Amino acid sequence: MTRNLANEIIHEMLAKKNFGELRDVLARVSPELLPPLFDTLGKSDRVLLFRSLPRDKAADAFSFLDDAHQRSLLADLTDKETADLLANLSPDDRTFLLEELPAAATQKLLGLLDQDDRKVALTLLGYPEDSVGRLMSPDFASVRQEMTVQEAMRHIKAHAQDSETLNMIYVTDDQGRLIDDVRLRRFIAAPDDAKVSDLLDGRFVSLQAAQHREAAVRLMKQTGYFALPVCDRDGVLLGIVTADDVLDVAVEEATEDIHKGGAIKPLETPLLATPVTALYARRIVWLVLLVFVNIFSGAGIAAYEELIESVVALVFFLPLLIDSGGNAGSQASTLVIRAMALGEVKMKHYLFAVFRELRVAFLLGLSMAVAVFAVAYFRSGIEVAQVVAISMVAIVIIGSVIGMSLPFILKKLKLDPATASAPLVTSIADISGVLIYLAIASALLGGLAE
Amino acid sequence: MTRNLANEIIHEMLAKKNFGELRDVLARVSPELLPPLFDTLGKSDRVLLFRSLPRDKAADAFSFLDDAHQRSLLADLTDKETADLLANLSPDDRTFLLEELPAAATQKLLGLLDQDDRKVALTLLGYPEDSVGRLMSPDFASVRQEMTVQEAMRHIKAHAQDSETLNMIYVTDDQGRLIDDVRLRRFIAAPDDAKVSDLLDGRFVSLQAAQHREAAVRLMKQTGYFALPVCDRDGVLLGIVTADDVLDVAVEEATEDIHKGGAIKPLETPLLATPVTALYARRIVWLVLLVFVNIFSGAGIAAYEELIESVVALVFFLPLLIDSGGNAGSQASTLVIRAMALGEVKMKHYLFAVFRELRVAFLLGLSMAVAVFAVAYFRSGIEVAQVVAISMVAIVIIGSVIGMSLPFILKKLKLDPATASAPLVTSIADISGVLIYLAIASALLGGLAE
Repeated sequence: MTRNLANEIIHEMLAKKNFGELRDVLARVSPELLPPLFDTLGKSDRVLLFRSLPRDKAADAFSFLDDAHQRSLLADLTDKETADLLANLSPDDRTFLLEELPAAATQKLLGLLDQDDRKVALTLLGYPEDSVGRLMSPDFASVRQEMTVQEAMRHIKAHAQDSETLNMIYVTDDQGRLIDDVRLRRFIAAPDDAKVSDLLDGRFVSLQAAQHREAAVRLMKQTGYFALPVCDRDGVLLGIVTADDVLDVAVEEATEDIHKGGAIKPLETPLLATPVTALYARRIVWLVLLVFVNIFSGAGIAAYEELIESVVALVFFLPLLIDSGGNAGSQASTLVIRAMALGEVKMKHYLFAVFRELRVAFLLGLSMAVAVFAVAYFRSGIEVAQVVAISMVAIVIIGSVIGMSLPFILKKLKLDPATASAPLVTSIADISGVLIYLAIASALLGGLAE
Repeated sequence: MTRNLANEIIHEMLAKKNFGELRDVLARVSPELLPPLFDTLGKSDRVLLFRSLPRDKAADAFSFLDDAHQRSLLADLTDKETADLLANLSPDDRTFLLEELPAAATQKLLGLLDQDDRKVALTLLGYPEDSVGRLMSPDFASVRQEMTVQEAMRHIKAHAQDSETLNMIYVTDDQGRLIDDVRLRRFIAAPDDAKVSDLLDGRFVSLQAAQHREAAVRLMKQTGYFALPVCDRDGVLLGIVTADDVLDVAVEEATEDIHKGGAIKPLETPLLATPVTALYARRIVWLVLLVFVNIFSGAGIAAYEELIESVVALVFFLPLLIDSGGNAGSQASTLVIRAMALGEVKMKHYLFAVFRELRVAFLLGLSMAVAVFAVAYFRSGIEVAQVVAISMVAIVIIGSVIGMSLPFILKKLKLDPATASAPLVTSIADISGVLIYLAIASALLGGLAE
């Protein structure tokens, strides 16, 4: 059917309210022909036309409409029709639609989706991955400040079935902006004829949808609430984040950081359910990178070939010394990374943290030097023992400062501080360890090598 | 005052209800004299006597009484008097008392304490450290199954102020045993004259007070509830564990595991608030232990002194190879430790996990051998390159299996699997790495060393 002919026929059928035949015709029209037709129709005819479309075709046609037509249609459809329409839209179209709509409309539409679809919609909703927006549930109880307590309670009871939590009631203004939170128990205790606005104290906490989901963990830990309201940039209440989801986030984030700390790309599935090839892929990247980092250690050693040939005993203490630097360094990085994740340590603390680390590392290095001096003395005599002990102090201090600094450097570069894994810190500390050890040995034992 | 004289005087004063003088006398009697006196008094006189004691002395005297007298007194005191008594008891006496009482009485008494005292009481209550019992709050709404919905709602409203959460109402039998949990919304929706027992479905989850607190994290993650009931061994409801506390636990447990993974005794205070000496103390233990583990690597090298003297190029690749084994091993231990903490991996999975690890490690070793072969070939020729490549495969496999096994071994020994820190695994893998590398070199290059 050509476009013009279809146009004419459809116009005629709408005029005659001949819906039976209209349905038959529309079933044969390809959906991308409908948007231009829409422009030629009045508002009520558009809705009639849309309602005459088979469901799947309606969704297709809808996705071809421009924003303005989509919004005007949505305003005229019943909730049931809208729910059907949304269910038939492909997830990306649905997300696109939800993204374009004002927050209040998005919130309403999300409520019409079933749980799985809503999850998908939220996932795709354009909130960055790992953002608070992805965690939101639109099932919460909100009331308006001008309601009486009785009206509010009636409203709350009516929505009790789909509220994820009833402990806290959110109060919004006429723009949908969050203006306070009130505990349900205060509603229960208040006289029926009191105004909701009498219960407000103007103190409330909220998250922004674009924030990193770790912010939800921190705020929930601080407040001890079981649910936190999420707003958009204008303060419009979009949904709530509940303790169960935040608990999942806390555990997942910890798992991610722990995996990263072991130089593994975080697994997203349980260990035993992850295929061997996926495990390989998530582990090999860092291992090979570290091989190349370690080649520098080899190069360092090669530079002192003659020294080593003349004092082979130096080699005995090589693994011990470089491991010690790496161990102290990975302790330092482990502490800083976790403290950063908990929000305890920020960029501005760098100098303070390093200053303290120098003091701790000096004590650590000294203790370890004492331990190793005795062994080296009995094994290889006083000269080597001196070299080993002095190197130990220097290596532990340098390793610790590297371990303490690397997370700050990564953070400064807008990378994840958790990337400063124990293996990475160890490998970098190893290079400096080799160079320090052999430089000190060369200085103190240089005569022996000639 | 002698015992008998005091006894007589007090008896007389009680008989005459001469409370003013009784108070004066009692203020001068030492508290340990009172218990024998108690035996000579009738029940009502005991209470009168107790009420005439100055507060602090009452608490002392109370702590000298035997269980039976304590219980009988508690039963007769008003809540206010009991609260005063508890507040004046020393924490250990209070805990002792709470431990001795039946669960229901303990629960009631805990409710009388202020928040700080309750925390202390729970801490000391004899539940093991890190047990669910330590997390409990006695503030929850519980109703009896024979109540009507209206009665239950009245009861819930009356306790709304001290209930930590109202989402879930717990239903108990006449022994205080938990028999079900019902959502508040079901109560709200039910007709007033329905019986609570009509709302029951007999499906509920609960924790035991003696369980490790990680069980609370797992159960809360599974159920998505904001509060979980805690029972004693008889199923008597003792309290609830709420999402805010469980969130804290999840974060703390992760921090502990992360610190352990970095070979640090877990810090209990924020990093920057921990004194330098405390940081030193929490880091030095493992560092020195690891120094001694690493001495074995040195001993391994010493055994091949001649070989190294003749082929110094072998030393260049030593840090690279042993680090690679350590890195692969700490990846494996990191994965298993976290999976164990999440409850994904249990002892019975050991063989399966090792079998999979062998396959993953073989692929990893092969890839890394390829990477390092090229470097070794250009640096030191084909003989050394062969030794390095073959060693790499063997070292990565052995290191991975060590890393995978160590957490299982620790768990088998009832130690914390998280003790298998990256540095520990690295150090142990290093020893095997040195031995493997030099044994392979000796076998393939033995001729050169002669």
